[in-house]
Formats: sequence, C-alpha cells, structure tokens
Amino acid sequence: MENDFLYLSEEDVDFLIGDNYSMVEDVVVEALEHYYHGQALMPDKISLIFDKKNQNRINCMPASITPKNIYGTKWVSVFPSNRSKGIKNVEGFSFLSETVTGKLLCMMNSSITTSLRTAAVGSLAARYLASANTKTIGFIGAGEEAKSHFLLLMNTFPNINTCKFSARDIEDTSALINELEKDYPTVNFIDCKDDYQKAIEASNIIVTAISSQDPVLKADWIEDGMLYIHVGGREDEDEVALKATKIVCDSWEAVKHRTQTLSQMYVNNIIDDSNIYADLHEIIEGKKPGRENEKEFIYFNSVGLSVIDSLLSYKIYELAREKNIGTLLKK
Amino acid sequence: MENDFLYLSEEDVDFLIGDNYSMVEDVVVEALEHYYHGQALMPDKISLIFDKKNQNRINCMPASITPKNIYGTKWVSVFPSNRSKGIKNVEGFSFLSETVTGKLLCMMNSSITTSLRTAAVGSLAARYLASANTKTIGFIGAGEEAKSHFLLLMNTFPNINTCKFSARDIEDTSALINELEKDYPTVNFIDCKDDYQKAIEASNIIVTAISSQDPVLKADWIEDGMLYIHVGGREDEDEVALKATKIVCDSWEAVKHRTQTLSQMYVNNIIDDSNIYADLHEIIEGKKPGRENEKEFIYFNSVGLSVIDSLLSYKIYELAREKNIGTLLKK
Repeated sequence: MENDFLYLSEEDVDFLIGDNYSMVEDVVVEALEHYYHGQALMPDKISLIFDKKNQNRINCMPASITPKNIYGTKWVSVFPSNRSKGIKNVEGFSFLSETVTGKLLCMMNSSITTSLRTAAVGSLAARYLASANTKTIGFIGAGEEAKSHFLLLMNTFPNINTCKFSARDIEDTSALINELEKDYPTVNFIDCKDDYQKAIEASNIIVTAISSQDPVLKADWIEDGMLYIHVGGREDEDEVALKATKIVCDSWEAVKHRTQTLSQMYVNNIIDDSNIYADLHEIIEGKKPGRENEKEFIYFNSVGLSVIDSLLSYKIYELAREKNIGTLLKK
Repeated sequence: MENDFLYLSEEDVDFLIGDNYSMVEDVVVEALEHYYHGQALMPDKISLIFDKKNQNRINCMPASITPKNIYGTKWVSVFPSNRSKGIKNVEGFSFLSETVTGKLLCMMNSSITTSLRTAAVGSLAARYLASANTKTIGFIGAGEEAKSHFLLLMNTFPNINTCKFSARDIEDTSALINELEKDYPTVNFIDCKDDYQKAIEASNIIVTAISSQDPVLKADWIEDGMLYIHVGGREDEDEVALKATKIVCDSWEAVKHRTQTLSQMYVNNIIDDSNIYADLHEIIEGKKPGRENEKEFIYFNSVGLSVIDSLLSYKIYELAREKNIGTLLKK
C-alpha cells in the first residue's frame, strides 16, 4: 500500500454500511471508550466560518486512536445557505492513515457517516436516557440529520409507532415522510409542517436537527418524561436546559469550547460544571444511572467527536478491504 | 462539478509544475500579500505527535483565501524515523474546495509541493537577503528539502558555481550529488559527507534542512555576509540567531507558536519581538530594506504557512483543468 491508497465514494460507503446501524452504534461505544480511557488524541477541531449570518463553515477534525495506530482527519463543509439554492448543505471527506510510518491508507466520502454517527450517538444516548416505553418521537427539522436520527432510533426502539416531523420548509416534511413511510409501515407519520409545537407535544423523544441560530424549541412545550436530543447549534431557549432533571453530553469538555446552546450558557455563566449530570460514557460504563423514573426530563447534547469519525473511517476501510470495494489510486 | 472532484497524483502534480519554479515563487508572493492584507484565514495548524523522540507527526493545515473563495487543507505526515526503514519520511495530501457552496473541487498529492513551496519561500527570501554576489551555497541535509532548496536557489542565482552538501548519512550526499550533477554541469558539487563545518564555511547562503532536534549548526562557523536559511526544527545553537544583524521570518507571529529554535528562544525569554527585524513580506513590499551591505549576517526562518499551500493547490488545480490532467472521481 505504500504507493497506493483506497478511495471510497458515497456509493461505496453506503453499500458497506447499508442498514447496519448497530455497527455504527458499536463504533460509537468503542470510540468513547478509547477517548475516556486516554487512548485517543483529539485536539479541538478547526472551524472556519465564511458567512457569520448563515454559519457557512468548513471544519477540520483530526483524531488519532493510539492502540489502533490510526489517524483520521475529517473535512466537512456545512453550508446552511445552500438550502435556498437546492444544493446539499453538508459534504464530508476523510483521510485515514496509519501512525507507524504515517502513510495514507484511504480517502473516503464522509457525508453519510457524518449524519449517521451523530444519530448513532443520539440513539445510544436514548438507550439509557429515554423512557423504556417510548412510542412517539417528534422532530424539529426534516433534513439528512433528522432522517438519520429516525433510522437509528427505529433501530433502537422498534416499537415506536408515531413519528412527527416539523420543519421551516413544509415541503421538507412531506418529502421525508414520503421517503420513509413505505419502509416503516407500522409507523404513523404525522406531518406537522411548520408547527413545531405540534411535533414536540406528547413525544417521548424530541430531536432538534435544524441549522438554526434561533431558539425554536420553547421551554413551555417540555413535558415530564421527555428525552431531548439536541443536535445542532442554538435551537432551544436557555430555559429548556434549566428545566432538565439531568443534562448529559457526549463530552462536556468539548461542548465548553463550541457554540451550542449549552456552550453559550456556560460562557455566559448561566450554567457551570455542576449543572452537568454526566458524559454519556459514564452512563454506558455504569458509573452513573441513566433514566431513573418516568418523570425526569433529560437533556442530551451531542457536539460531535472526531474520535468517532476516525474509528468509523477505520471500520469502513476494514470492511472495504474485506469485501474488495473501492478504487485503488496511485499516490 | 457538484458530483465529481478531481484527483491529482504526485505524477500529475510533477508534470504540471515541471521546472516552473518561478511560478511557485510567484504563488508565494501572492499568498503572503493576501495574508498580510487580511485577505486570508489561517488558523494555527493542528500537529499530533506520535513519537516525541523522533518527532513523528501528522499536521493538519487549513487556510482560506477570501478574495479567491477557496479553502484548502493539507494533511502532511512527517516521520523522521522512516529514514532508518528506507521509507520516505514526508507524505502530503490536500483537499481544495470553494467557499461559495462549500464543495470539494480537488484532492491532490502534496508531497512535492510541500518541499517546493518551502524552498520557494527560501529562494524568495534570498533574492532580498543574500549577497548579490552569491556563488557558493552550503547545506546541512541532503534530503528532499535540501534538493528543493538547491533547485529553487539555482533558479534565483544561476551564477552559483559551488554547492556543498553534508548530511548525517554520508550515502545521502553522494546520492543527491549524483542525481543533480548531470543537470547542473556548471556547478562544482563538493561532497562534505558528515563534515557540517566544511559545508558551511565560505558559503554565501547556508541552509539547514535536517529533521533534527540537535543544534548542529555552530555559531563559530558563521561568517560575515552569510544568509542562513533555517528550515527545520531545532538545527542551530541559540548563539547563531544572537549573532545575526537581522532576523527575518515568513511570519514571526506564526513562529512564536511553533517549536523551532527561534520559537524556543522566544518562549525562554532569550529573544522578544524587538529582536525580529521584519517579516519577509515587509521587505518584498519595500517597507523595510533587505540586505544593506556585504557584512550583514542575516538569519531567515521559515515556519511554513498554510496560506501558501492553499494558493498553490488552487494554482495547480487551475493548471490541471486547463491542461486536462488528473482523474475525475465520483463523490
């Protein structure tokens, strides 16, 4: 491999992952384990913002997993302003290399995995933090990230029978429901159009996945027993987090240095370390209990960890080699 | 291009640049201009070190050039320990994208350009800082970086008639001289083997390009009128810089945050801002004079700026499109 590397297109990655969502969740568990046990190097990502108003940006997210001798770097562009142009707003590519001689092993399209791995963190959190009796999920947002969360949550909670989608553009909700309903005949899809409140009320799990800097989720809509999965930037009023029985993060240390709602509340001294119940991994490892009763409102915040991207790239690379998928390119 | 991107291998890049070293120097001038006039975003690079002793590392170097609407990220692995394994110790690849919709335009091999652009910064500095009467150049180091500096300096000073190479491994100097002497019949190559002092003495321009953490260049060897081009990490005694009439950097602000000799001297309070004469661009723009007489010993420190990598990637991409070179890959 010294003079070649493997290229995996979106189609290749899609073929390799298929609907093996549990594999993605397993990778998340393993990556968190490496991270929390000091077996990973994960510097802060570099985010360059080209348009403050729209938050058009490109992130560069490296991470190395020491016991595996691998290093991955994801380049991911997030351009919310593309929506109005009819162009996809997220595109990702990754470099994967080994760290024994530092050679590039693979370059792959990471658009699908960017959304799937975020959703896998959410569904993993839901295993521990959602009501065991989860039947209804509600979304603000109907894009790729909302879709991935639906797929992963259905994988975790096959008994979900009601799913409500709302979004800024009402064409988005009907398009997504059309796409999903044939594969999920047991789910009653409710098109809430741009009525966010309708999507939220009486849902066991609520997800905001909308490229917004508006606090669209109102604290008044929160009900006992809900799990809120916060994916994006600033999507909720401060009062939502203040209402929470427990706040759980993928990594609170990483959240502190970003620009999400909790990050901003931390910088503005509205919350501090004492307001955070746990990082997800402490709950997975059994150091702290997850949901303890049906009354708790739990707030889960996912910031996105490059250590997960790197391990997922490696897993996909291994699968590609095993199944002989991809294009070998001369360096 | 929305669903495709261009891949350029090392062979493609080599074909596109050829011996057009002046083009690379022009790109350096233009990139420095954008950088110094606030038309570039250049965050600190992320460097992950896998082996402290050998300084095996992978760097991730993003930069955006605002008026060109482009963003580049270079992934470059530098593994000095590869030398003993007979494996190349530098490998680089870059992503290039536009910043209007954030789409990937090109992924290219950046191994050659990493070394050429560093050398182009050095040769550009030499235009302003070396003796106009430069006839002799001396190297500590005989690897890719030394070779590139030779090529670029010959392009700038075609009257150079003597070139001395020294290196840790004496096979390296003879191999490099064998490679170069047929193309440069007017140059008298002197193989100094591992005698560094011999390579340095009586040279108008001296270059250290060696992956070393040892101060191999001694202050005692410095003579009036020399230009010293410092490329690597810690290759010289502190006293070398302290002897300098003028210290010039590609970017002193960037140097402060790295680990080169000057960076370490700054951190250790041996030098401060007042010891630095200028950044190269101030001299190019005529704000400050370069060399003023034949007695000055001038120390030039190149840290490597990602803004140059990004603009060079873009230039190569434009050439590739013009000449129809490269492989179009499906995203």
